[in-house]
Amino acid sequence: MQDYSPFLNLFSKHLEDYSRALNKAEPKELYQPGAYILSLGGKRVRPLLALIAADLLEQNPQKALPAALAVELFHNFSLIHDDILDNAPKRRNKATVHIKWSNNIAILSGDILLVKAIQALQQGNHKLEQAQLDVFLRTAAKVCEGQQMDMNFETQKKVTVEDYIHMITLKTAVLLACSLQMGAIAAKANKSVQQNLYAFGKHLGIAFQLMDDYLDVYALKNQAFGKQIGGDILSNKKTFLLLRAFELADKKGKQRLNAALKMNDQPKEKIKIVKSIYSELKIDQLCITEADKHTQIALKSLQNIKADNAKKEVLKNFALQLLSRTK
Amino acid sequence: MQDYSPFLNLFSKHLEDYSRALNKAEPKELYQPGAYILSLGGKRVRPLLALIAADLLEQNPQKALPAALAVELFHNFSLIHDDILDNAPKRRNKATVHIKWSNNIAILSGDILLVKAIQALQQGNHKLEQAQLDVFLRTAAKVCEGQQMDMNFETQKKVTVEDYIHMITLKTAVLLACSLQMGAIAAKANKSVQQNLYAFGKHLGIAFQLMDDYLDVYALKNQAFGKQIGGDILSNKKTFLLLRAFELADKKGKQRLNAALKMNDQPKEKIKIVKSIYSELKIDQLCITEADKHTQIALKSLQNIKADNAKKEVLKNFALQLLSRTK
Repeated sequence: MQDYSPFLNLFSKHLEDYSRALNKAEPKELYQPGAYILSLGGKRVRPLLALIAADLLEQNPQKALPAALAVELFHNFSLIHDDILDNAPKRRNKATVHIKWSNNIAILSGDILLVKAIQALQQGNHKLEQAQLDVFLRTAAKVCEGQQMDMNFETQKKVTVEDYIHMITLKTAVLLACSLQMGAIAAKANKSVQQNLYAFGKHLGIAFQLMDDYLDVYALKNQAFGKQIGGDILSNKKTFLLLRAFELADKKGKQRLNAALKMNDQPKEKIKIVKSIYSELKIDQLCITEADKHTQIALKSLQNIKADNAKKEVLKNFALQLLSRTK
Repeated sequence: MQDYSPFLNLFSKHLEDYSRALNKAEPKELYQPGAYILSLGGKRVRPLLALIAADLLEQNPQKALPAALAVELFHNFSLIHDDILDNAPKRRNKATVHIKWSNNIAILSGDILLVKAIQALQQGNHKLEQAQLDVFLRTAAKVCEGQQMDMNFETQKKVTVEDYIHMITLKTAVLLACSLQMGAIAAKANKSVQQNLYAFGKHLGIAFQLMDDYLDVYALKNQAFGKQIGGDILSNKKTFLLLRAFELADKKGKQRLNAALKMNDQPKEKIKIVKSIYSELKIDQLCITEADKHTQIALKSLQNIKADNAKKEVLKNFALQLLSRTK
């Protein structure tokens, strides 16, 4: 298995220094929640993508550290605010910011992380790569749009699989794409390389979210998935699986699905029935096929890039490990 | 009376075009609240300061339009989020965003306005003035810090007048200062001019907030103040007046003040007693003196700038009109 620890160590050291300063900044109620959520850990996927992209193209991942920090701060800004929107009590088994402090503090400490994310792009003499800022801001807007679409879907009657793919592209995939492109910009890559890395990240992100939907239902207990199996079914979340099932089911199948969605007092039975409908319609396989389609598009984009093949393998393996979650 | 309508017309036209596009953007739930709060009006003080500064230095206010839009969008982002924090039902006699839509929509639509504010600084070919972005981001962080301090003061036992001046500097004054400096940067002014305009705006902002505290208690009914007289007293808000009164009152005076603050069931009586204590301690005069001190520092900074005297008068008069609220 590929060893990403040099990248992770490089970023972790940088983040640690940053978080230490953040934790001391005044007023504490504004800055400590940011340091807290950063301290909860995570795979640091987005900063690693920025560093690996820069390394792929220029052998110097250091140059992508400002971009790596920016995407991680932005990601954590969005987590703080999303946890308020989702009313989520826990993240990584620890209290979310709005629970540990308050909604008001979570709003403001999220806001400041967004400002700090953009400041992280500024280097000595407040210079920054304008192209990095540009992709970053366009991505930030898309992530907000995706989050709003996700909220809308909760009450929206008609949601197509196409709508869903569009939503996860905005909410999840473009930030991975942006991380890679910003790493490429740090390495002074040309526009075509940037675009191919962006496409790689976008389709990887879509595949990742589809596998997330899949694993929510089908993960083995010993798989390091970190969520309650069947949670999406229990909350009637409009995932790829559920939306595709509604599209494919016949009239009677739709009735059975609708009836199952109302079985909130029998969670085990609810999961069992929905899974059996999925199974009849081969939804599990369709989800994997769809994820695989996007993985292949991602890998094709990577092939288009002229770079050291061994280094391209590093990025490819990182992507595949991310999709299988078997690290 | 000075006529600012050319500046206001220039900005209003620009903002109108922008808001129209914002109002049509998808998803609507994300973008329409921003267009809504912008449509509620306001004096557009911050963008006017940016335009007047650019006009003062270069005769071409057009160049400061991106900065003017950025500060207005940022201001409205902060209003949307502050209204959640303050649980405010109304703004300019219309429902606040979190009331008209929901807290969740107010959080996200505020977030996107912050992103859009920074995007507004980007011009053709996504170029921007790095110095503008720098002062803008540092100011954005300060505004969040000031908002957090203001929240902290609500429950903080010991708040000094000095703490209070620091808080209003961050929460209110630096955004006026930033608007002027960004206008100066747009006009390619040198660092010394930028700093003098920043200082002008900062002290103007402090004076403005002190006069806001004063007028909350002492505004005549026919003055165009737009708030309920005595509102700060009724909500026990730690304003300059209350904090200075606690500093100056003797033991018995402090007891009377503390007793008055608890009279929530007798609002008229509460206002009357607090005002009589203020009157005994000449707090009203002290507040005006303090505001005047900052106005003088502001005007001194303006004098330091080498520019057309008639145009300096324009900016001076704008400031004085702002302080007197008698437009």
